[in-house]
Amino acid sequence: MELFPEKYSQAIEKALERYYERYTAPENLYSPARYILSLGGKRIRPSLVLMAAESFGVPLEKATDAAIAIEVFHNFSLVHDDIMDRAPLRRGHETVHMKWNGNTAILSGDVMMIQAYELFESYPKDIFRDVVHTFNRVARLVCEGQQMDMDFEKEEYVPMEQYIRMIEMKTAVLLGGALAIGAIIGGASTTDVKKMYDFGRCIGLAYQLTDDYLDTFGCEKTFGKRIGGDILEAKKTFLYITAFDNTTDKGALRDAFSITDEEEKITAVRTLYRKAEADKAIEKSIAYYTDKALSCADSMPFPAHVRDTYRRLAVSLVERKV
Amino acid sequence: MELFPEKYSQAIEKALERYYERYTAPENLYSPARYILSLGGKRIRPSLVLMAAESFGVPLEKATDAAIAIEVFHNFSLVHDDIMDRAPLRRGHETVHMKWNGNTAILSGDVMMIQAYELFESYPKDIFRDVVHTFNRVARLVCEGQQMDMDFEKEEYVPMEQYIRMIEMKTAVLLGGALAIGAIIGGASTTDVKKMYDFGRCIGLAYQLTDDYLDTFGCEKTFGKRIGGDILEAKKTFLYITAFDNTTDKGALRDAFSITDEEEKITAVRTLYRKAEADKAIEKSIAYYTDKALSCADSMPFPAHVRDTYRRLAVSLVERKV
Repeated sequence: MELFPEKYSQAIEKALERYYERYTAPENLYSPARYILSLGGKRIRPSLVLMAAESFGVPLEKATDAAIAIEVFHNFSLVHDDIMDRAPLRRGHETVHMKWNGNTAILSGDVMMIQAYELFESYPKDIFRDVVHTFNRVARLVCEGQQMDMDFEKEEYVPMEQYIRMIEMKTAVLLGGALAIGAIIGGASTTDVKKMYDFGRCIGLAYQLTDDYLDTFGCEKTFGKRIGGDILEAKKTFLYITAFDNTTDKGALRDAFSITDEEEKITAVRTLYRKAEADKAIEKSIAYYTDKALSCADSMPFPAHVRDTYRRLAVSLVERKV
Repeated sequence: MELFPEKYSQAIEKALERYYERYTAPENLYSPARYILSLGGKRIRPSLVLMAAESFGVPLEKATDAAIAIEVFHNFSLVHDDIMDRAPLRRGHETVHMKWNGNTAILSGDVMMIQAYELFESYPKDIFRDVVHTFNRVARLVCEGQQMDMDFEKEEYVPMEQYIRMIEMKTAVLLGGALAIGAIIGGASTTDVKKMYDFGRCIGLAYQLTDDYLDTFGCEKTFGKRIGGDILEAKKTFLYITAFDNTTDKGALRDAFSITDEEEKITAVRTLYRKAEADKAIEKSIAYYTDKALSCADSMPFPAHVRDTYRRLAVSLVERKV
């Protein structure tokens, strides 16, 4: 089942084409943006902008500029994150800094951020102000979340509370921001904008935790990338922190992480995670944030059938295998 | 002689202190911004914001947020440019990517750009919209100029017209933008905003050409950095392009650039530049843009003594030895 109606992806791809045409020279500055954006992805964030705007009665075409802005910003963050992570691949293709070089990836990312702000210019000044205000807040939190993530790499242990705060900032707030911005375009009240934001934040948390779960316990074929990546990178994920907190034999966990053979290491760590019931704990946490999202959905100022689309979305995002 | 009244630098430093206090955690994200900004510099761009706003009757304290925004953006561009240029030093101190690392420099730069937009939020919505509109345009041109500069490194020759366009985008438009934004805050008409922008663009061009001149013909003691840097990096500056265009003996120029001893190379190239009268040509060009700036100043809607401060600024910027 698709997460969003097809008309959303059609509107998004059409608007992206317009965006590509708007910026051409210098070629070396703008072609990396075109490249990364054309690699696709689920287009969740721009779809959320459209969904919220539509729920508040705005025709899709009036929300596409903001939708594209959010997608361009998201892709800017991917370009810069990939440099920082030295990632060779993104969505199965070369990352920008590999296909071009680090300098190009830095500068193209920079200009993409500016373009996001430019795309908001098509809105009337009251909406423009509120949209940019929300966007500024969210964009800054995304950077702060990325910094926390990098800081955590140097730590042996990270308290769960801080880990949740990190994924909230790095991932969840942008989903919240996308819905909030769609709502602002739809003329929603401050209270309703907040409700939409909170729904997005909760599905964002459930979404990221599902990613953590699938990275260790998913099926390689359907997940589309190697299972066990987080274990090999010794990332302090929800699973690691829970296992560390729940086990009295912390030495066993340390030993498993020091195994050199990659497959053996993944299997050993996975077994310890199961033993510490980290898999059950993360499922419980996913259910917790999904429930919170469902409560938000129930309080939205829409007819029941519209609220239901939000409920279904919250459930689909965590039932995915991809 | 100081370029700007002392009350400007006092207002700027005070506002920077407030800005440092506003952003604290994560420490690793925000301390590089504090570091680079506290290295000082001439504070030309924020001073231009204050100068324009004051000329249109706005109290300084109402223009400081925008002034700081421009300075923060300028320093963001320095942080990212220094990574791209692999520069070890900035204003005699370690660059951010050397003092911390490349990742920190990328991410801190990113968040500084967002902070610039956040700083504009203190303005009423009409002004906010126009300010962000102008800022978007200018910020994008700065990136495009930086891309052109990097593209030129791979070229054997660059036409003068393109070189001028590059320095206009990379340097001059931000000076124009600073004045335009100050004028917008002062409630200036579109025509007057344009005049201020043009004045800034012209002094920016004259300023950058003066930099090119001093880099080759300046006095090391007063200029504060090594003379001949552009020659050693084989930069296609105004001087190089003029010498290449004016000389029939292009082989001699190539030979001079292939000398291995650095001091010998600088002396040989400098002699050829003089022979081709590139020094006179750049002086003429500096005078041309200064004259254009003076004409802009004469057309400004201010009393004669205020217009005179702009005239004096245009002249001081090119008479400097620093």
